Amino acid sequence: MAEPGAVAGVERHGRPRDPENDAAILNAALDLLIERGAAGTSIEAVAQRAGVAKLTVYRRWRSKEDLLMAALEHARNPDMDEAPAGRTIDELVTSTAELLSRPRFRALIARVIGASVDYPKLVTAYTERYLRPRLDALAEIARQAIDAGHFPPHTDPGVIHDILAGSIGSVLLQHEQDVTAAQVESRLQALLRHIGYRP
Amino acid sequence: MAEPGAVAGVERHGRPRDPENDAAILNAALDLLIERGAAGTSIEAVAQRAGVAKLTVYRRWRSKEDLLMAALEHARNPDMDEAPAGRTIDELVTSTAELLSRPRFRALIARVIGASVDYPKLVTAYTERYLRPRLDALAEIARQAIDAGHFPPHTDPGVIHDILAGSIGSVLLQHEQDVTAAQVESRLQALLRHIGYRP
Repeated sequence: MAEPGAVAGVERHGRPRDPENDAAILNAALDLLIERGAAGTSIEAVAQRAGVAKLTVYRRWRSKEDLLMAALEHARNPDMDEAPAGRTIDELVTSTAELLSRPRFRALIARVIGASVDYPKLVTAYTERYLRPRLDALAEIARQAIDAGHFPPHTDPGVIHDILAGSIGSVLLQHEQDVTAAQVESRLQALLRHIGYRP
Repeated sequence: MAEPGAVAGVERHGRPRDPENDAAILNAALDLLIERGAAGTSIEAVAQRAGVAKLTVYRRWRSKEDLLMAALEHARNPDMDEAPAGRTIDELVTSTAELLSRPRFRALIARVIGASVDYPKLVTAYTERYLRPRLDALAEIARQAIDAGHFPPHTDPGVIHDILAGSIGSVLLQHEQDVTAAQVESRLQALLRHIGYRP
């Protein structure tokens, strides 16, 4: 299936694969998941959007759920990758608020949660591959901030984690309204001040 | 359309209506929303599940979104109505944790959030009619607890609100795993202790 000139790798099952095709398929799958949701996305529609034959998709992924999971794992675009980053709690709050105010990010999270009833592995894949590494990094930043005296000494880093993870829920339940980064940031800061955050 | 013997009311548009039909239709719509999501639910399927003619549904509700909104507003069944209740913060935490551990409630919230991209009015209806009255009651309980000295004097009741609203998000992002009421309760209590809750 590799096009002339394409860099062909070797697939798990021994088939030649075309990395450009793979990327096009996974990007198309992510776009369709956001636009139509998991139930409204078909392998056929993904193939069409990616400009490849349906069989090319089926050769790589056995089911729609596998394909959507791969799309979530693969995603290295601004909607997915610019997740909460930063080296201090304040930077983390700012980047989390910015991320949560993006319509496309909110749509993606809403789609993943909405699909969780039918495709429970999707939300697990998303949580494990995407959220958990970032929340683990957050817990480490929280521990450093506690050590540095920015929180009361007996603060549980898990509580700081729960506050930031919980902010996703509050924002998703205001979907129709515009939520600005400044609003989310001010609410997160209020929560942190209440648990004794003094930077 | 009223069956003989049915208590006929008067519809907004002047048509006679059958309250038993209405209840059957709204219950069927809620069940299908939970089972299949908004995108997977059709007025035809609702009519079939409720055992009424499709026209009977269309006479009352102009669109699927209107019907699903009415179903959310109408819902007075254990999945919807036994929302956070209780007269103290502790009772409220216990009932919230119990509610969040119910698979059917979690499925409903996931479906509503998942539908928010296509049907933004749905999540607004759910929030306004269902969540907001309960969160307002919570804010009042929080104010009483602050006045009673169970929180530090300058505690913002909005922060207590955000903690409980945020717990929904954390729980939804663990959909595949079983979440017990005891786990949710212990995390909520940890958050509240960190903001100085001393009952």
